[in-house]
Amino acid sequence: CQLERLDALEPDNRIESEGGLIETWNPNNRQFRCARVALSRATLQRNALRRPYYSNAPQEIYIQQGNGYFGMVFPSCPETFEEPQQSEQGEGRRYRDSHQKVNRFRQGDIIAVPTGIVFWMYNDQDIPVIAISLTDTGSSNNQLDQMPRRFYLAGNQEQEFLRYQHQQGVKEEQDNDGNQEQEFLRYQHRQGVKEEQDNDGNNIFSGFNRDFLEDAFNVNRHIVDRLQGRNEERGAIVKVKGGLSIITPPERQARHPRGSRQEEDEDEDEDEKEERQPSHHKSRRGEDEDDKEKRHSQKGESRRHGDNGLEETVCTAKLRLNIGSSSSPDIYNPQAGRIKTVTSVDLPVLRWLKLSAEHGSLRKNAMFVPHYNLNANSVLYALKGRARLQVVNCNGNTVFDGELEAGRALTVPQNYVVAAKSLSDRFTYVAFKTNDRAGIARLAGTSSVINDLPLDVVAATFNLERNEARQLKFNNPSRFLVPPRESEKISSSTTRV
Amino acid sequence: CQLERLDALEPDNRIESEGGLIETWNPNNRQFRCARVALSRATLQRNALRRPYYSNAPQEIYIQQGNGYFGMVFPSCPETFEEPQQSEQGEGRRYRDSHQKVNRFRQGDIIAVPTGIVFWMYNDQDIPVIAISLTDTGSSNNQLDQMPRRFYLAGNQEQEFLRYQHQQGVKEEQDNDGNQEQEFLRYQHRQGVKEEQDNDGNNIFSGFNRDFLEDAFNVNRHIVDRLQGRNEERGAIVKVKGGLSIITPPERQARHPRGSRQEEDEDEDEDEKEERQPSHHKSRRGEDEDDKEKRHSQKGESRRHGDNGLEETVCTAKLRLNIGSSSSPDIYNPQAGRIKTVTSVDLPVLRWLKLSAEHGSLRKNAMFVPHYNLNANSVLYALKGRARLQVVNCNGNTVFDGELEAGRALTVPQNYVVAAKSLSDRFTYVAFKTNDRAGIARLAGTSSVINDLPLDVVAATFNLERNEARQLKFNNPSRFLVPPRESEKISSSTTRV
Amino acid sequence: CQLERLDALEPDNRIESEGGLIETWNPNNRQFRCARVALSRATLQRNALRRPYYSNAPQEIYIQQGNGYFGMVFPSCPETFEEPQQSEQGEGRRYRDSHQKVNRFRQGDIIAVPTGIVFWMYNDQDIPVIAISLTDTGSSNNQLDQMPRRFYLAGNQEQEFLRYQHQQGVKEEQDNDGNQEQEFLRYQHRQGVKEEQDNDGNNIFSGFNRDFLEDAFNVNRHIVDRLQGRNEERGAIVKVKGGLSIITPPERQARHPRGSRQEEDEDEDEDEKEERQPSHHKSRRGEDEDDKEKRHSQKGESRRHGDNGLEETVCTAKLRLNIGSSSSPDIYNPQAGRIKTVTSVDLPVLRWLKLSAEHGSLRKNAMFVPHYNLNANSVLYALKGRARLQVVNCNGNTVFDGELEAGRALTVPQNYVVAAKSLSDRFTYVAFKTNDRAGIARLAGTSSVINDLPLDVVAATFNLERNEARQLKFNNPSRFLVPPRESEKISSSTTRV
Repeated sequence: CQLERLDALEPDNRIESEGGLIETWNPNNRQFRCARVALSRATLQRNALRRPYYSNAPQEIYIQQGNGYFGMVFPSCPETFEEPQQSEQGEGRRYRDSHQKVNRFRQGDIIAVPTGIVFWMYNDQDIPVIAISLTDTGSSNNQLDQMPRRFYLAGNQEQEFLRYQHQQGVKEEQDNDGNQEQEFLRYQHRQGVKEEQDNDGNNIFSGFNRDFLEDAFNVNRHIVDRLQGRNEERGAIVKVKGGLSIITPPERQARHPRGSRQEEDEDEDEDEKEERQPSHHKSRRGEDEDDKEKRHSQKGESRRHGDNGLEETVCTAKLRLNIGSSSSPDIYNPQAGRIKTVTSVDLPVLRWLKLSAEHGSLRKNAMFVPHYNLNANSVLYALKGRARLQVVNCNGNTVFDGELEAGRALTVPQNYVVAAKSLSDRFTYVAFKTNDRAGIARLAGTSSVINDLPLDVVAATFNLERNEARQLKFNNPSRFLVPPRESEKISSSTTRV
Repeated sequence: CQLERLDALEPDNRIESEGGLIETWNPNNRQFRCARVALSRATLQRNALRRPYYSNAPQEIYIQQGNGYFGMVFPSCPETFEEPQQSEQGEGRRYRDSHQKVNRFRQGDIIAVPTGIVFWMYNDQDIPVIAISLTDTGSSNNQLDQMPRRFYLAGNQEQEFLRYQHQQGVKEEQDNDGNQEQEFLRYQHRQGVKEEQDNDGNNIFSGFNRDFLEDAFNVNRHIVDRLQGRNEERGAIVKVKGGLSIITPPERQARHPRGSRQEEDEDEDEDEKEERQPSHHKSRRGEDEDDKEKRHSQKGESRRHGDNGLEETVCTAKLRLNIGSSSSPDIYNPQAGRIKTVTSVDLPVLRWLKLSAEHGSLRKNAMFVPHYNLNANSVLYALKGRARLQVVNCNGNTVFDGELEAGRALTVPQNYVVAAKSLSDRFTYVAFKTNDRAGIARLAGTSSVINDLPLDVVAATFNLERNEARQLKFNNPSRFLVPPRESEKISSSTTRV
Repeated sequence: CQLERLDALEPDNRIESEGGLIETWNPNNRQFRCARVALSRATLQRNALRRPYYSNAPQEIYIQQGNGYFGMVFPSCPETFEEPQQSEQGEGRRYRDSHQKVNRFRQGDIIAVPTGIVFWMYNDQDIPVIAISLTDTGSSNNQLDQMPRRFYLAGNQEQEFLRYQHQQGVKEEQDNDGNQEQEFLRYQHRQGVKEEQDNDGNNIFSGFNRDFLEDAFNVNRHIVDRLQGRNEERGAIVKVKGGLSIITPPERQARHPRGSRQEEDEDEDEDEKEERQPSHHKSRRGEDEDDKEKRHSQKGESRRHGDNGLEETVCTAKLRLNIGSSSSPDIYNPQAGRIKTVTSVDLPVLRWLKLSAEHGSLRKNAMFVPHYNLNANSVLYALKGRARLQVVNCNGNTVFDGELEAGRALTVPQNYVVAAKSLSDRFTYVAFKTNDRAGIARLAGTSSVINDLPLDVVAATFNLERNEARQLKFNNPSRFLVPPRESEKISSSTTRV
């Protein structure tokens, strides 16, 4: 972490899929290596499904745009969403399904994905879903190494961070020598890399013997071939023809015209309504309306049946919280902007992940006072507009002085001081933080560090007269966000001396 | 952990002792380095004592065979096993002893040894004791480095992992240069290595000045020489002539003919009986029977006298639990096999060690469904028989496809997928896991990940028709272990395509 | 941590300031790197203020000498020390100040400074304050790297560990190559190092654009220049002309003649008295006595006003505890000496820092029995006198056999065995330990490991007759400290055989 220069980085690799796109930032970049995290961005077109996968480290996902469904599978938790068996004598088409909880997400949500937990997401709307994901490879939940890994349950695509892994692998090999076993393994490794190109698949089932899988699933060879992803090229995000039909309670959202980005109500309210009338929901609209009607009347009795104490705490944990512009802010100043944070106090599952997040929006020329992260590294991702940021390290050196514009990411290491000034009407960002109770110390304004020091200590420390020290302590009445000065409404051009 | 190939490894070094044998696996091997653990196997002949030692990392020991006693010393805990003072006017031979709790172990036990706690074990039976030990050097309780270290209280033997340490030391030296202090230390180190060969002992007392030890123990030079292990060659495991005489409550086991391997009762039952009638037990049978009678009647009043709240929780913690074939399984299917796990819920001391374990037994051609460890690395050690295992990494590559036979160990890294099929009538294994609440996610069968996904997600993910997806979800009614198919009773030969 | 030789080290660098001196030990030294800590020593002359700074890792500070004030700033905690507004129509001189709690420290105190928390200290007495500080860079609270970093809020001085950082930086660069980005960064880094020399300041404000700071504080350019430390050369410790005037309750200490080192009362008592009558105290004696009188009568109502549940636990945490020679010892033997420890049980904030400490004082020829740290590394710093110490590693090698004299530090790694014998009338030391519940296991004397083993195990282990084993177990009736033998009152010269 001896970083003398930080950069506002764009993704440096993109992998196209049938239904969307995954872009990644190189996790071997010094500033990500310092923070021990990896960043990626997924875009899902309408009716696109991100196929189920799990990771060796916890993930925090921010929904930059769009709405849809996501699911996670918690091993040994019950299937709590059930479709009632049809009592009427049935056409073959009436099937019964049951599965674990499916959640609705919307723009501004933070989704917490624990290590090793299978996750999928689906876009049932016209607006593309854009999801920014931080993977905390430095987490104590990751007992492998510092490379982020995706374990796909299906398909033939390369996992998105694999190319960086090889890069690192080669470097490590050069560093390491001495015993023969390693020589041999290195040879093996190179062979492995080659073989991969002509491998039959790249998912976790690909490497198994077909007989094993036939036995394990008790299915025929054709299905096993599909499981192993042989000869397909659809990628990590696939198109679902006709859309997915999954068991979910009805949404208020269905009342809005699809695809419009209207401000949504407070999150808590929505959840309340969600809980009120569980029933079957078919996102593939316009089809099977009859079926829907029938099912609707028969649902509502058995959700969560089978729960016990343990499941109540683990299996039904809340996995998302909205911190976007439509949520009620924690810090608000109409002239300056708004900030909302999510910690393990708000979303207890984060205690397990040891991650938190912050969403901020600054009006033009408003400033986030100089501050530092007490106990976390922070990865800032600009969602909209642009801002000028300065970051200073322990030696008093400016390690960043530049613009952060929408789509770029900047790492702010623990204890480094950062200040920001919006250059756009609305500069909006999300910050991922590597501590579930991340805190900041502000260095200017009311209740800041300077404000909390005794006046004489301030005077002596900064070599100031007492009345000057008083100005330093008390002149700025703001706490987090400073509204623009009157003069600044004209120009914000500043040059460094 | 960029492992492209795993191997089923045998121990690669053996150190003979007077009373037994210690075999070790090279902890610098890539797969152990990845899991940050070290593995060893000790064999104790009849009346053999493994001399007291402690380690820089927590240990989990599985008793593959045999019965005996073990003890640990918890600093500042009271001596709870006391021999009453003889009230009769005494011959000099009547002595009074007191010491901390001594425990009985038997085949199938897991023993938890915390970091830095002195541990010894003793075989009082005819069957050799075989104990497999996993040392978790990656534990946060280890503040030294990644080398497993044994600190012996006695003897002149080399600690069993020392040779690997030198190996690594040399490597590190080559990597590291730059400042003169290091140059000097390197020289010192080489000298140190040489000196060791003609050192007077290799235990923690050897390096002290005799005067220091005379003062510390207030004993004569002869005893200090013994303490320092001068001129002896007995090794880490010593023969006790005539057997050990220690204060222990009587065992049910004494009722069985010695040396026979009959199935023992449920563990909980045994413990209950153990507690019921504490009294003095002398394992050195046939001697001093009169003394035994006398003491017997006078014991039973003062055990645990001197306990207080703190000691109740730390000093009297249960340190072992039976997970062997004679214990009641957690998962059982008469056609397929049985599995028993021990986590910190069963044995709370494991919360401190952050380790858990699993014992499994599979019938011929039965299969453990493809699954992965959610939050732990796992080291599989085959106890009996052989099985075919496949392990697949995140790239879909087969990193292991082969047989695991009795006496070999295989590391299964976190999140790597593994499946196993028994090739013997009984394939039995123990798995050490680097998390005290290790969990697995199963990928096939009832309540598996695939089973818990919505049907339409399964269909879209694997490019299947809905009825095929239903087969994938529901065709296998087993959960963990799949019984062999009818056809498989004839042949299990499978070749990879 | 493959240390074959330890050294008793003196500081190897000193940085003079206007008001004092900071000395540091090289944190790249093998024994500090093994323990993952850094050590430094600050000396503050009368009326000297150590300017506010924070660190990337928790600190434990021991006050070797002197008395004074210290403060920390906990972000989002209220200012609990307030000066009442003057109701009388005011001359401009009547100002109102408020700030967070200010604490008094005295010789023998341990002060706990959490990661990222701003800390300052001040000497209001004639005796120089000497403070030994251990920074635990291996702490999980440190998410940067292994270099200790000071982030100064003011001044133009180099942070005290920076020179070692460059040293390490260069080394790492030599090890690392391969990708072009690094080449470029390395170039940048070198430029950065150069630029630093002609930088305008070295504090966390120096790197910011002046306009940013003017906006953030709403102050003029002159004050900003002072904030950035331009063109000043006063250093990390500055002289306060006329002394500091801060709001503090009156001290008992004011009753003693200033500068004398009389033994002070028990700590607990002092704290009690401290709490009893809060009022305004002005350390700048002889000035403004009238003001003082006036304020005095109006104080006492509003301290801690504004507290709520959260603040009660975090914001008002006790941050210091006296373990010096004047405190009541935990272990005491008038012939041998005294030991006092502080753990998270005594001072709960240490649970957060994961550190503890021990203060010991040994009479001439008294011995601390051979023992090892169960779960911590330990850094021993000799305060007074000298002692002979021996340290032995797992191979039975003597890694240290020499004198530790006042002002030198020795690292004792986890599980290494150490024994000490005082060569002075009073050998006094402080040991910093990297675990908040650090424990030791003693190897000789009552309740030691040897004492707690069964007699027959001792006999068999050390190849002793039972009566010899009894001597080894029971001959030394001491627990921690062994008084000198009669003979030793004449000579303590011992030579190693």
